Amino acid sequence: MKRFMDKDFMLESRTACELYHNHAEALPIIDYHCHLNPKEVAEDHKFRSITELWLGGDHYKWRALRANGIPEEYITGNASDWEKFQKWAQSVPYMMRNPIYHWTHLELKTAFGIDKILNPDTAKEIYDECNQKLNQSDYSARGLMRRYNVEVVCTTDDPIDSLEYHKAIKESGFECKVLPTWRPDKAQAVENPKAYREYIDKLSQASGIEIKTYTDLIDALKKRHAFFEENGCRLSDHGMDQFFAEDYTQNEIDAIFGKVLSGKELSEQEQLKFKSAMFTDFAVMDAESGWTQQFHFGPQRNNNSKMFAKIGPDTGYDSMGECMTAKSMAKFLDRLNSMDKLAKTIVYNLNPNSSTMVASMLANFQDGTVPGKMQYGAGWWFLDQKYGMIDQMNVLSMQGLLSRFVGMLTDSRSFVSYARHEYFRRIMCNLIAADVENGELPVEEMPRIEEMVRDISYFNAKRFFKF
Amino acid sequence: MKRFMDKDFMLESRTACELYHNHAEALPIIDYHCHLNPKEVAEDHKFRSITELWLGGDHYKWRALRANGIPEEYITGNASDWEKFQKWAQSVPYMMRNPIYHWTHLELKTAFGIDKILNPDTAKEIYDECNQKLNQSDYSARGLMRRYNVEVVCTTDDPIDSLEYHKAIKESGFECKVLPTWRPDKAQAVENPKAYREYIDKLSQASGIEIKTYTDLIDALKKRHAFFEENGCRLSDHGMDQFFAEDYTQNEIDAIFGKVLSGKELSEQEQLKFKSAMFTDFAVMDAESGWTQQFHFGPQRNNNSKMFAKIGPDTGYDSMGECMTAKSMAKFLDRLNSMDKLAKTIVYNLNPNSSTMVASMLANFQDGTVPGKMQYGAGWWFLDQKYGMIDQMNVLSMQGLLSRFVGMLTDSRSFVSYARHEYFRRIMCNLIAADVENGELPVEEMPRIEEMVRDISYFNAKRFFKF
Amino acid sequence: MKRFMDKDFMLESRTACELYHNHAEALPIIDYHCHLNPKEVAEDHKFRSITELWLGGDHYKWRALRANGIPEEYITGNASDWEKFQKWAQSVPYMMRNPIYHWTHLELKTAFGIDKILNPDTAKEIYDECNQKLNQSDYSARGLMRRYNVEVVCTTDDPIDSLEYHKAIKESGFECKVLPTWRPDKAQAVENPKAYREYIDKLSQASGIEIKTYTDLIDALKKRHAFFEENGCRLSDHGMDQFFAEDYTQNEIDAIFGKVLSGKELSEQEQLKFKSAMFTDFAVMDAESGWTQQFHFGPQRNNNSKMFAKIGPDTGYDSMGECMTAKSMAKFLDRLNSMDKLAKTIVYNLNPNSSTMVASMLANFQDGTVPGKMQYGAGWWFLDQKYGMIDQMNVLSMQGLLSRFVGMLTDSRSFVSYARHEYFRRIMCNLIAADVENGELPVEEMPRIEEMVRDISYFNAKRFFKF
Repeated sequence: MKRFMDKDFMLESRTACELYHNHAEALPIIDYHCHLNPKEVAEDHKFRSITELWLGGDHYKWRALRANGIPEEYITGNASDWEKFQKWAQSVPYMMRNPIYHWTHLELKTAFGIDKILNPDTAKEIYDECNQKLNQSDYSARGLMRRYNVEVVCTTDDPIDSLEYHKAIKESGFECKVLPTWRPDKAQAVENPKAYREYIDKLSQASGIEIKTYTDLIDALKKRHAFFEENGCRLSDHGMDQFFAEDYTQNEIDAIFGKVLSGKELSEQEQLKFKSAMFTDFAVMDAESGWTQQFHFGPQRNNNSKMFAKIGPDTGYDSMGECMTAKSMAKFLDRLNSMDKLAKTIVYNLNPNSSTMVASMLANFQDGTVPGKMQYGAGWWFLDQKYGMIDQMNVLSMQGLLSRFVGMLTDSRSFVSYARHEYFRRIMCNLIAADVENGELPVEEMPRIEEMVRDISYFNAKRFFKF
Repeated sequence: MKRFMDKDFMLESRTACELYHNHAEALPIIDYHCHLNPKEVAEDHKFRSITELWLGGDHYKWRALRANGIPEEYITGNASDWEKFQKWAQSVPYMMRNPIYHWTHLELKTAFGIDKILNPDTAKEIYDECNQKLNQSDYSARGLMRRYNVEVVCTTDDPIDSLEYHKAIKESGFECKVLPTWRPDKAQAVENPKAYREYIDKLSQASGIEIKTYTDLIDALKKRHAFFEENGCRLSDHGMDQFFAEDYTQNEIDAIFGKVLSGKELSEQEQLKFKSAMFTDFAVMDAESGWTQQFHFGPQRNNNSKMFAKIGPDTGYDSMGECMTAKSMAKFLDRLNSMDKLAKTIVYNLNPNSSTMVASMLANFQDGTVPGKMQYGAGWWFLDQKYGMIDQMNVLSMQGLLSRFVGMLTDSRSFVSYARHEYFRRIMCNLIAADVENGELPVEEMPRIEEMVRDISYFNAKRFFKF
Repeated sequence: MKRFMDKDFMLESRTACELYHNHAEALPIIDYHCHLNPKEVAEDHKFRSITELWLGGDHYKWRALRANGIPEEYITGNASDWEKFQKWAQSVPYMMRNPIYHWTHLELKTAFGIDKILNPDTAKEIYDECNQKLNQSDYSARGLMRRYNVEVVCTTDDPIDSLEYHKAIKESGFECKVLPTWRPDKAQAVENPKAYREYIDKLSQASGIEIKTYTDLIDALKKRHAFFEENGCRLSDHGMDQFFAEDYTQNEIDAIFGKVLSGKELSEQEQLKFKSAMFTDFAVMDAESGWTQQFHFGPQRNNNSKMFAKIGPDTGYDSMGECMTAKSMAKFLDRLNSMDKLAKTIVYNLNPNSSTMVASMLANFQDGTVPGKMQYGAGWWFLDQKYGMIDQMNVLSMQGLLSRFVGMLTDSRSFVSYARHEYFRRIMCNLIAADVENGELPVEEMPRIEEMVRDISYFNAKRFFKF
């Protein structure tokens, strides 16, 4: 019987241990997609307690607490840090087999050097030890990033963002690159004309371009895009239900933009056309800048309206939607490809039903210019767990080239979630090693297999994104 | 090599054996959803032969026989009990790897103490031995239930049912609770106005309320709901293609009800609105009574019209449909949650494509009042087999809390299908044990892991349903 | 650690080795669905190089090369055979875990007796050795088929095909049967009236029936169907997005046919009606001839219009679509079943989302006349790989009878792809053996288990198709 989370955690064979310890473990982290708050890095935030660090904003944990019957007071409510932590410690044993059980203990171990199992008996000592450490200067935001050997992180930012914190971080000489990612979801969110109008006003201000027409809008966005580029941005990101690829004419789009700016509701068809145009124009900007575009599709958000009214979005009430998007995905990518404007692309699906379709679709647009130009993205959100990771790697292996995979990202706002890179690397090494042990990969090719492990862990991302 | 179906069947590690034998095996069975005929319990039915017991009504077996090329005469036709059993015994070897192969031998072993493999060579001796035992008093319906240590069963009953057999069973002092479940499918089946009208007349009679309006309908149902409650009912159950959550007004529903009662066909939109109203009103009744509501969604029934004309429904011609129901499921649950009328809920999907969506959706409505209030239900019908069970537990583990799972049910009309609880418990213990053996769960937490096994086997259901 | 691709490749237990080596390995191959060019068999084609054999038409390999960043010149372009092979050899190490890695080495071993790993270091020697062998007379098309012990292959042919090469092969006395398969996709492809009109003209010529009405069309097709039958055809095959089962009247179909023949575009509804009629009439022909009908559904083709314009269809730009076809599939099969015209049937799905639905649906139409009459087909195209094969066998095992499975086919145009039968048999033996080793199948029934292995490898197909 293996000990829980020992040094060979998730590594089931000697080959797995060797691959991980000799070829993956020590490599730096390129976290090319996350939701870290750059302000906290700029100010080198210190955490008042493990409760703030762990439970202050992590809606994964909030969902698990609710499922365990814990009242909201102890989750997002006014209970004290210790009371909240107590409820958390009491609930953790009920989370066995949920990925949170592993994240929690892996973070305890890697961030705090704590090997104990969290449960009601150990709650107090773990709480105290964590808090004591968080009080030390090397447990600040930057301290934690150093601890995890983070080389690059890409945050997620709106085109109107001043990027002041990214600039400040750079100027401070912090050895980890903290780069912005262009996430223009709001620039196409025409479903709410009032909010959209307000956003356009802000974009006018940020860009210095008065936006009266669709052409102005694109000009303003291009200016901001260039500004992001100057500040080190090399990736865009888009959140969406599905792909948009309606036919449209420039006249139609001009008229739709005029209509929504004047405060009128758009029909569903108008919204689809508008988004189809915007996604195309965004994609062209990325292609022309040599960036990588990311598409995260498939969530169904804010399903619980009572809690939305109480505590707002991103609080644990999202889940996966259902869609049929193979046709629009193909049409969208084909449109760009036909224009010679298809940037390097990563697609992440949330509902696992789309996995094999997406991986097989992307292969239609590999064009021989860049190895792995079209990337089937790592297991995301509800799929960012052991089985989700294994499925993603197997689907990619069967439908494409695992060896060209740019690997893991945290998609997180936490400074200890880098442990997930370790978790991923262990699972990846174990998966590949199993094939070697089993005679499905040739041991004679061990040097190439080791290179594949290093590439997926670090070097593919480094070469692909060119930060 | 392990012996087939020995005492450690499905248990692949020492930890698995210990978990099963020490913590799951001996616990009583709470079969909270089945289709047992309460009359057979009330009358303590004796079976004339193993053919009646096994092949008299089991459409799983009928499908397998047809797939094996056996003519209908030997399945639902007029062949003798021995002839039918012979064809069955001849076919069983062709069912290797199908769950029926395991059910068959597990039932032989646990009900009859027979360790032989069923095939043409053993057919006669097994037939004779089973029939001889079925002739003994301790092999009656109740005898079999005692043999399997059944503590509670919940049958599936129409609101108009007199529950006479449930009452008779209770009065007889039978130590196993046989409780009704409220299954009001027919009370909303407006797709056939004539049959619906007839049903409403029967409901009027059963409730003593003359039903002329929708309000009368709900009053009559509430009265029957209270009657079910008096007779120990704590669960409702609904069979449906998908979730219904149309917008509607009370006036619309009144008009639709008037229309269908007058014998007119409803449009599809009217049907959806009516069902949306009925499902909401049913759900409110359950919430107000503290019951648990069950939703079984996804079948596509009666696909073979030729055989439907010959031998009617539930004869092995159903399979899984396809639907996109994430939006309506969210809207339905959200509507109830916003009214503070969301009862404890179990959702079972038939098409495995819905599994991860459903499990992730349910987490949006966990509210901290009851641990595991929203349950992702056990593998059902075509998914009630080894891989289906493992998938269900893995999906639940990844998206929610396995530790809070209320566990297995038979969904069966057979008095020997309790063996499936054993099958499930073995698979569950094996799954959890593998994580312990592999260092993915801490052996230091063995007492909590053992408790999880006991909870899923028995105690979670006991606490959750409060029979 | 097992050696790569040794004699026990993919066989993880002693039972697996015994099953494979003693019961599967030596059996002949019935390749009942492929895309071999019968002209190459008739003329006993000799290959100028391994590049022609491997890279001349294999769009799986082309996709993998593009994904690896190789320019099109070295794929479908004008580079020399050696240059192309060099790029291939350089890319193969990047294909580890993709099925191509296994196909490649298995083909090297089984066709050429080469045990080396293909990579840049070995490229030249392997290239030379293969080319030298291909220059020998026993490495011709027929030589390769003999080498793989191929007993029957069924090619894929249009109703207008003269079958001259099939006749020539038969007359030549070649010991392997090369039979045609009826694939009438073009006879219902009314989406393009001009191309359709041209096709109908050719069909008129081929059949000697002037086609002016739908009745003429069916008469002409029946005549060709009989001609195919005379030439040994026992299977039809249909490629389609989804099943078609619209209601229609004969008058409607007559009118639609008149309209399309006159060069007018059909509405989508008209197309669906027409295809529904055609598929029904095709199915009736098959039922009346005792053939087996095959349905391959689910691709989304020609997604990359730029490359389509350059190099045409079937060049690696297809992937899997998404559809909801459970209702139309049921209606289509039920219509035929109600007419007593449901032929033996094999259904293959491309998107794995349909797998369990299809397998469970087919069971509704098993009618006891032929064991395994309704077949859930082998993993196809993007699913023709290790995990796809295992999934297909597990789904079939759970929803039907694995023992009645007619087994593997290559679906290929390559004379070395027979290695896939070996790959499949190894995986199948390993899967079944695991259950024996694990006590989930009884070792006492070993003779029946061995028979199952032989049946799936060869005898089921032999009995089912009756070539």
